[in-house]
Amino acid sequence: MTNPTIAILGATGAVGSDILQILHERNFPYGKLILLDRAAVAGQTKSCNGKTFTITEATDDCFAGIDIVFGAVDNPISEKFAPAIKAAGAVFIDNSSAFRLFDDVPLVVPEVNPNAAQTHKGIIANPNCTTIISMVALAPIANLSPIESITAATYQAVSGAGIPGLNELESQVATHVNGGAMEVNTFAHQIAFNVIPAVGAMDENGYTSEEMKLQNESRKILGLPNLHATCTCVRVPVIRSHSVAISVVTKDTLSLDEVRAALATADGVKLCDDTNNGVYPMPLHTSGQDIVHVGRIRRDMTNPRGITLFCAGDQVRKGAATNAVQVAELLLS
Amino acid sequence: MTNPTIAILGATGAVGSDILQILHERNFPYGKLILLDRAAVAGQTKSCNGKTFTITEATDDCFAGIDIVFGAVDNPISEKFAPAIKAAGAVFIDNSSAFRLFDDVPLVVPEVNPNAAQTHKGIIANPNCTTIISMVALAPIANLSPIESITAATYQAVSGAGIPGLNELESQVATHVNGGAMEVNTFAHQIAFNVIPAVGAMDENGYTSEEMKLQNESRKILGLPNLHATCTCVRVPVIRSHSVAISVVTKDTLSLDEVRAALATADGVKLCDDTNNGVYPMPLHTSGQDIVHVGRIRRDMTNPRGITLFCAGDQVRKGAATNAVQVAELLLS
Repeated sequence: MTNPTIAILGATGAVGSDILQILHERNFPYGKLILLDRAAVAGQTKSCNGKTFTITEATDDCFAGIDIVFGAVDNPISEKFAPAIKAAGAVFIDNSSAFRLFDDVPLVVPEVNPNAAQTHKGIIANPNCTTIISMVALAPIANLSPIESITAATYQAVSGAGIPGLNELESQVATHVNGGAMEVNTFAHQIAFNVIPAVGAMDENGYTSEEMKLQNESRKILGLPNLHATCTCVRVPVIRSHSVAISVVTKDTLSLDEVRAALATADGVKLCDDTNNGVYPMPLHTSGQDIVHVGRIRRDMTNPRGITLFCAGDQVRKGAATNAVQVAELLLS
Repeated sequence: MTNPTIAILGATGAVGSDILQILHERNFPYGKLILLDRAAVAGQTKSCNGKTFTITEATDDCFAGIDIVFGAVDNPISEKFAPAIKAAGAVFIDNSSAFRLFDDVPLVVPEVNPNAAQTHKGIIANPNCTTIISMVALAPIANLSPIESITAATYQAVSGAGIPGLNELESQVATHVNGGAMEVNTFAHQIAFNVIPAVGAMDENGYTSEEMKLQNESRKILGLPNLHATCTCVRVPVIRSHSVAISVVTKDTLSLDEVRAALATADGVKLCDDTNNGVYPMPLHTSGQDIVHVGRIRRDMTNPRGITLFCAGDQVRKGAATNAVQVAELLLS
């Protein structure tokens, strides 16, 4: 595939906007780039890198001649257009969760399982944002010894709920400073100066959809069908970058030094593990870039085969947009 | 002890101010109340419940005639005055961590181990704020079956660092809204719109002092010397109330229903476990009151004897000031 024609489906959202920017940051060698979105915004323009793009309405017959479609829309929209995208012969790199667990859909984190991308049958799924960040941090450990279990608690930025989530935090903080009535629309409760321990819809087992993704998607990405993961997903008043506190149990006992050495040389990872000098992963240092920071590495007090750590990464970029562009780069290579 | 003479050592801090207020909220039957603090603020007054109190400088010879001293100061100040308080025959209810693990110092959460208070030899220690909140949530489970291990990740409010922590978040948020240079003084990094995964000084084992307290203090409070606890303490941009995501493994397999039933009737607990209707523990609902909210109760995916939950409580009140006043009430009863 040389100088492909590419399209972004959902070009005006948080992830779609970042895909547009990251394609140009990384000099992705496209021939033509088409922005697709709902009828209400068709005709509007978006600029990037000195070029102006006009948004076209996404319809079933708009995909002819397109080689790669980046999906940055919710499940129902992905499900609606997937058949037309496949019929047009394009590869659909989808950020929604609609197809992630389908047997014939590879679920790819390029630093972890790049070869899976080549097995696609028209759709490649981008994993959940928290899962991508956790997988970049944990794959170097899994390469030392298979992971048996993961216990995780997340600190998820409001931009995980898209631009409306971002605007809601900004508006609530401004109200706190300047007075007025605090408006709550996007999240179930006020998020400014609060944490909300529920992200996603509830499953019957008491976990949310967001929490179960860590187990289900990690199993597929790491090729470990018996991996168990307990996750508590919590929204915090951070603009951008998800963080995760993780305890991971491996089959063998690993030394902290070999874990640090593996992380220090791993693709996509920066080892930030010098707590005495204030060096640890934080949203403050991981926003607006693509590397996952990993630190606070220590022995799990509850299990001699356990390692406890903290990681953070920009969930709109590496957790979604950058990962999708990296997957497209795999298709070109 | 009837109508005792009582004193608050460190009366102008966040915890000392709350002790003053909570003594009056709970109609604590004191005969005389003395506010003690450093020389710089001696002579200033504080008002509560229509009464005005003048602050006296704390010195070694100021404790004569006092029956109970509430300590709301850092370790060095507690250590400095403890001998004089004991020599004066007062009971020292200390919020610092200086004496918590001493064999002859009971470490008391009134809902959990009230009888320990009666064994004191002049000092009763108030546990760490995160530990108190976790113990109120976990003791009803420990009563069903002994706890073997705890894996916890915290979401700690800035007021855990006292009034300077509170002021720093407010100032940084105001700067974000109105412009200007973001000042960082109290915390190691900007806390507004960030999370900082390091609370307390570093231990050689890679854990912070704050993280080790959960294991060491829980062992003493629950009388379980072999309990293991792995904790990651994280500061979040919340004004007040600490939250904790916990997975707890018990000796026996407990049903979720018996755990919920135990929590529903436990002292100091409100069961908030209806995620579908937006009911779960949050700082927003636990600030300014004394009950620990517990919810998100579900089976730990990594262990059939594990329970995963989320809890939140006001760390200045129940995590410090209210707990100390409750301990004093035990001495009167």
